[in-house]
This record gives sequence, structure tokens and C-alpha cells, in this order.
Amino acid sequence: MAASPLLDDLRAALGPEAVLTDPDLLRGYERDEADLCAAGTPLVVTRPRRTEEVAAVVRAAGRYGVPVVPQGARTGLAGAANAVDGAVVLSTVAMDAILEIDPVSRIAVVQPGVVNAALSAAVAEQGLWYPPDPGSWESSTIGGNVATNAGGMCCVKYGVTTEYVLGLEVVLASGEVLRTGRRTAKGVAGYDLTRLFVGSEGTLGVITEVTVALRPAPAASLTLVAVFGSTAAAGEAVARIAAQGLSPSLLELLDRTHLTAIEAYRPMGLRTDAEALLLAAADTGPRAAEDLTELAAVCTAAGAEEVYAATDAVEAAALLQARRLAHPAMEKYATDTYPGGNGGLIIDDLAVPRGALAALLDGVARIAAECSVPIGVVGHAGDGNLHPNIVVDRADPASLERGRRAFDEIMRLGLDLGGTCTGEHGVGLLKRDWLAREIGPVGVRVHQAIKSALDPAGLLNPGKVL
Amino acid sequence: MAASPLLDDLRAALGPEAVLTDPDLLRGYERDEADLCAAGTPLVVTRPRRTEEVAAVVRAAGRYGVPVVPQGARTGLAGAANAVDGAVVLSTVAMDAILEIDPVSRIAVVQPGVVNAALSAAVAEQGLWYPPDPGSWESSTIGGNVATNAGGMCCVKYGVTTEYVLGLEVVLASGEVLRTGRRTAKGVAGYDLTRLFVGSEGTLGVITEVTVALRPAPAASLTLVAVFGSTAAAGEAVARIAAQGLSPSLLELLDRTHLTAIEAYRPMGLRTDAEALLLAAADTGPRAAEDLTELAAVCTAAGAEEVYAATDAVEAAALLQARRLAHPAMEKYATDTYPGGNGGLIIDDLAVPRGALAALLDGVARIAAECSVPIGVVGHAGDGNLHPNIVVDRADPASLERGRRAFDEIMRLGLDLGGTCTGEHGVGLLKRDWLAREIGPVGVRVHQAIKSALDPAGLLNPGKVL
Repeated sequence: MAASPLLDDLRAALGPEAVLTDPDLLRGYERDEADLCAAGTPLVVTRPRRTEEVAAVVRAAGRYGVPVVPQGARTGLAGAANAVDGAVVLSTVAMDAILEIDPVSRIAVVQPGVVNAALSAAVAEQGLWYPPDPGSWESSTIGGNVATNAGGMCCVKYGVTTEYVLGLEVVLASGEVLRTGRRTAKGVAGYDLTRLFVGSEGTLGVITEVTVALRPAPAASLTLVAVFGSTAAAGEAVARIAAQGLSPSLLELLDRTHLTAIEAYRPMGLRTDAEALLLAAADTGPRAAEDLTELAAVCTAAGAEEVYAATDAVEAAALLQARRLAHPAMEKYATDTYPGGNGGLIIDDLAVPRGALAALLDGVARIAAECSVPIGVVGHAGDGNLHPNIVVDRADPASLERGRRAFDEIMRLGLDLGGTCTGEHGVGLLKRDWLAREIGPVGVRVHQAIKSALDPAGLLNPGKVL
Repeated sequence: MAASPLLDDLRAALGPEAVLTDPDLLRGYERDEADLCAAGTPLVVTRPRRTEEVAAVVRAAGRYGVPVVPQGARTGLAGAANAVDGAVVLSTVAMDAILEIDPVSRIAVVQPGVVNAALSAAVAEQGLWYPPDPGSWESSTIGGNVATNAGGMCCVKYGVTTEYVLGLEVVLASGEVLRTGRRTAKGVAGYDLTRLFVGSEGTLGVITEVTVALRPAPAASLTLVAVFGSTAAAGEAVARIAAQGLSPSLLELLDRTHLTAIEAYRPMGLRTDAEALLLAAADTGPRAAEDLTELAAVCTAAGAEEVYAATDAVEAAALLQARRLAHPAMEKYATDTYPGGNGGLIIDDLAVPRGALAALLDGVARIAAECSVPIGVVGHAGDGNLHPNIVVDRADPASLERGRRAFDEIMRLGLDLGGTCTGEHGVGLLKRDWLAREIGPVGVRVHQAIKSALDPAGLLNPGKVL
């Protein structure tokens, strides 16, 4: 059992079972799922169960000037949860209680370690719905979702995580416990500290409780598929859907690379000869059939070669499942592309104004050709948020270099098109330089001023975001 | 023409026509529409037309250590726009250009002085909708709406102003120009500075440009009226509507005092014998009739004495107009109650969890009786946001004292019920003490730390919020 005054303090506060120092165990807490990001070896992993224990960890680390890296389920894709050498990792996964569900106020109060799917299931039992549905929803935690302001497929109609966070309890760098926000449906009292902490990736405080807004369960949705002969035509269809005032509850794009990868991963009769496929859904109850007809008409007018509606809920679920398989299927595609076992993905994430989607898709194809690197594109086309997935051979420096170049070119193109360097994955380590470029020197100074105001010693998740 | 180095600098930067020092003119810029709030006499009123002119005003004031008080149309109800003695008032009303409306991205970009109604009309021409609809919408500016995070009747379904602000241009205390946020539908890059500035009431920076999200125009709505024999029964109906998963597009409450006041102000056949009236609407297109039937059934089950649907759009508009008249009608009611010409209103604003609405309504009636002061209640019942309007004789210190006591008792009750001290009017000067009580000492320290980080000399709208 490793000894140090800090470890003694942590064991005294949490009990030895919640303080891990075994090197084999520590290795499991080094990084999230992001590629291209550095990760260090923590001194210790703590697993507090209560707010006071989180505060004790933060205060103890502060006494010894040791950084604190908060972690949820480490499903992040930007390195925000990566450990730094010698840090105290603060894992919130043991804080997994759903404290309250109130159907009249339409709120739930949860500890940060509650898994998104667990909350969704619990509120569904009461006819309620927690919309944010990141790809990781079956394993990621609400605390992590809030810290990264996670997105998902619902966002095109229902917005990202921050739209559903009413209030927070946060342990500050000082060890003080701050409560932000409210339990009421409406309220404008003071600065919006809640949303300042949402998406701040553990750099301003450690979230210990979350009050989320819920919605009534939506009506069953109807789903359609539109098949396009070019990605740009699919992008154009998205722009026209918005211009016509339609509000699909889902509007996803899969390009040919992804269709091929998914079909190889789990054959389900996808049109792998198509250049792009749009999946759209309408959840407007008695209006849904009419909305679906309008969506189909717009897709056809924008050049879709084929448009068909899912015949029933089973087929609709299968189509959604295909979309959900994009990530593991592309991982396999990368492995198959580079048979040495070192094939991998650089998963990118950016958003552009809807009107620029076609230009972005064309540009990504051009960059893939110029950099001689395979890039598949999948994403939440309806809100202009795409994930270009760059396929590299991790064992080949030249391949990695081409992948990095493509990544940078895509980021540059996105900003040139009036976009943002991250639509939903966050900044972490992966996008720090691009964030600085996006927000400019004044924006960086304001970020630093706020960080210094709340964490003067710079011990909370150092090196992330800024 | 008054002389001082600061005035010389301002005239040089803006031209003399945009720099007002005539005492008669200055008096018109001393205060907003809040009662009970102190206001000072400004040194000068500036009316910049461009961002660079705003920056010049802020820099000039900073050079001489003079406070800057930003103002829109001064329709606020918390004193946030009140001048302080010797300050530079920075009026944004001359910055009234709608810079862009983009139907594909569903955004508009406006200068802060654009009047809410002007933006609404402009986007409606393109089939789009800017939901936030504060009572002042025909005269208040978008800049003021953003600075106070204004609400309105739409909020029960569509949320307050902050839900519609994608990005801002802000002149900081340093005179630097910060751009926050984005033009994309989705984006999570960096700290959410946009929403930090929304609702910060001019204490962190001066908003010079706003990018707002728009929605497609909603379907025409159907409206119903439910008449209750007690305010608590109306509150109970609201709780049941939420619990049943219904989402009316409007859910407003008028109590007997307001019904009487409105009927006296403009006779329209309102049931002045009712203790409370709920106005509800559904804008769900083909589902609206069914939704209205469900709303009616819940109201009846909760004890409504009478429920009737507006027979046509004309009647529905008349009902909404009655609700819109609540404020001027109550002003007249106050004048009639105290014939000396000094009758007035202390307009309060708080929100509680929906389930506590009945308790709040009962409590306000009890407080009115205990303090011997007439209090009418009106408000956005659907999101638990009520405005108790306290009728006082401004010339009678005893009446004012009773009014203030009632105000404090209502605030205390609201917080005890798990509510917030302001649902939509903001903090300004009126609610500073109650904000401090609501957020506690840690919350106050975090507010102060952020204020100091962004405005170290404390020159931006000093004394407001904190």
C-alpha cells in the first residue's frame, strides 16, 4: 500500500476501499476513448460516494498542490477525462443514485455517476423522457454528459444536454459546495452559473448532483430513408428541409464508407451502392404521416434516388440500430483496412450552418483525396453536426501524419464555413488549439479569467479546454 | 454645453448629436419601470450607433473611472437600467438594425436596439418565429430582453430568452470586443459565455450584437378558458396538467382582482365573480382539438366551475388581449383604489415548482390579509411563474410599508416553497438581497469572482444584481 501524506488523508476521508493505488488498477483510469491525446499515470484513483467525500478529495489534493482529474465512465472522445501524471483521479461512478423523480415539476435529481440509460429507463416508467442521447448513452454517466454537454440524435429537435440541466451541485476548487440554478421550470436569478459549468469539462468544479428537466414521452415516430447519389445532394436536402420549416425528430446522415462498414459488420441489406443515406423521423403524433410525406417530397426534389418509409416499428428500429452501429462498424472497418491490427479511427466532430453542409461534405471528400487517407462521414446532419472518421494505421507514422493533416484541414474548412470546432464531443485535449483559433485572443483571455477566478491554483483538470 | 475631459472624449468619438447633457433630457434616462428602486442622475447619455462607438464610450468612461449604465427601452421591472449619479448612460436604442435573417440556419442577427416586435414582424414575413414575448414586447429591445433574460407567455412551452440566444458580440469593461457562441444549430466549444452574459443585466459587458435562433411559425392555436371558485383549485389544475404530460402552448392565470380590474378598464364580459381564471392554448395542429379536450377535462376534474373553448380566432385573440391588459388595468385599479393620484403597484415576480402553485396562491391571499394590502395575482401559471401585484398608496408611508412587508413575505414564502426570487423580471436593484438569500454565501462569492474577473474596476452597471 503506497504511502504519502496525501494518500493518508484520502484514506482517512474515504476509507481505504475507495482509494486505489494498485498500478494495474490505475492503468484502467488513464484515458477516455479519444485518439491522438496524451494521457498520464495518476498517483491515485478515488471513488467517493457522497458530496462531502468529493469535497474532502478536492481539499486534500489542494493542500498538497496535486491536480484533480474528474472522470465519469471515460467514454469521452476529446481526452477531457485523461489523467495527468501524479494526479488524483476523482471517479464519480460510485455516486449512482437517482435521488428523485417528480412528474409534476417534470424534474429528476441524480448523482453524477448515474448512467444515462438508467435515468432514461427510470423516468420512462413514469411516462417521462430525458432526451439527451449521446452514442454512449448505455454506458456514459449524467455527470460526464453534463461536463461535456453531450449531444446525440435527439438534438435536431430537442437540443443538447445543457437544455435539460436546471441546477447543479458543484464542489469548487476551494472545497466549498456551490448550488446553482433551481427546481422551477422558469427562473432568471443571477448569473447563469449552471450553464457555465455545463460543458466546462471538470475545469471549474466537480459536479456532485444534477437537477434535470424532463419532457413527457414523445409520440411514437415514423421513419424514412432517402438514398442519394452524392453526399452533397444529401446535404442540400437537409438545407431544404430546414428552409421549408420542417422539424424532424431525427435527421442523420451515413455516407458510403459507413454503409459499407455497417453492412460488413452486421448485414442488414443497406444500399452500399449509395453515396449517402439520410434517416429522418417524425414524432408529431397524428401529424407524423403528413410530416413524413413532406420530408420525402423534399428529399426527392433535392435529388434522392429512392425514398422509402419504414413499414413498421421493427424496421424503423433496425434502421436506427444500423445508425447506432456506425462507431463499432467503423472500428472494424479500420482494422480490416490495415490488417496488421493497428488500424484505428481519428473521430472528428464539427458543426457548420445547415446551409454549408453540402460544401463541408464536398470538402471532406476533397481532403480525403488530397491527404490519401480514407475518411467516412456520419452524423447529425439535421443540425449541421458531422463526424468525419479518419481511418489510419497507428503503426505507420506516415499514415498517422496523413490522418492528422486531414483532421486539421477539416477543422480549418469547418471554421471557414462559419462552423464550430466541436458540435458535441467537446474540447478536452484534442481541440484546444482549434478552440483558441475559433474564439480568438479576447475569447481565450475571458476563458482564462473565469478559470482563474474559480480555480486560482489551476488544479482542476489542468490542461483541458484551455 | 457642459464641459469636461470625458465629455470632450465622448463628443469626439460619437459626434455631439449622440452625446446628451441637457438636464431635461437626462431626466428621461434615469429609471426603468420598477417601483421601490433608487435612481440617480447621469452625467451624460450616449447613443452610440456602432460597436466601435460603444467600445469608445466604455474606454472613455474607464479612463476617468466613471460608471457605465447600459439601457435599452427602460421597460425593465427590477431597476437594472436605473442610472447612478454621475454615470455615463449608454443607450443602445440607436443600434436598431436587423442585420440578417437566414431561413436555412433559422437564425437572425440583430443589433441590440431592435424592438422585439420589429424582429418578430420581420421574421414572420419569412414564415419564422422568434418566441420570447415579454409583456413589453411592443416596445422593449432585444438587447434589453437578452440582458434581463426576459420571459413571457410562450415560456411554458418554448422557454425564456436564453434558449434563443446562439451568440453575442459584447464590449467588455476593457473596451475589447468579445464574440461568443456561434451561428450553427449545435455547438459545445468552450465555456458557455453566451449564456453567462444573458441575464447578467449589463454588469459583465455591453451587448452590441445578438444572434438568435428562430423556429418555424407554429400552427394556429386553440384556446380555452376555465373558471375556478378558488385560486388554489386553479393551481391544482396546473399541477395536474403537468402530471398528465400535457404541454399547452400557453397557460395563464388571472385572479379575481385582475379580472375586476380588466373588466373596469375595458369591459369584455369577463366573469368577475370567479376567483380565478385559467387561459390555456394548444398549438399542436391536427392534435390541438384533442389536446384542448384533455386540458378541459383536467380543469373540470380539478374543480373548474365552467370550461369553454374560444369559438374562433377572434374570441381567442380577445382573451389573450384581456391577459395582455392586466398591467395597465391594474395600474388604473391602483389609481382608482387610492383616489389621491398616488395609487401604484409593487410588481412582484417569482416562480415556484408547479406542485407548489396552490400553496403559493393560498399564501399570497393570507399575506394580503395579514398585511392589510390589496394583492392581485396574475402570471404564467404553467411554469409556476406568478406576478403578485401589490396595490399601494405611494403618498402614504404606512401603505408603502405594508406593501414592502407583503413583498418580503411573498419572497420568503416563494423560497420556502423551493422557488426562485425571480422568474423573468430579473434582479436589478429590487431583488439583490433576495438573490443573495437564494444563492447563499458561496453563490454570492462565485458571482463576485466572475464579476471581478470581467470588470475589475467595477464600472459596468455598478450596484446591480450583486
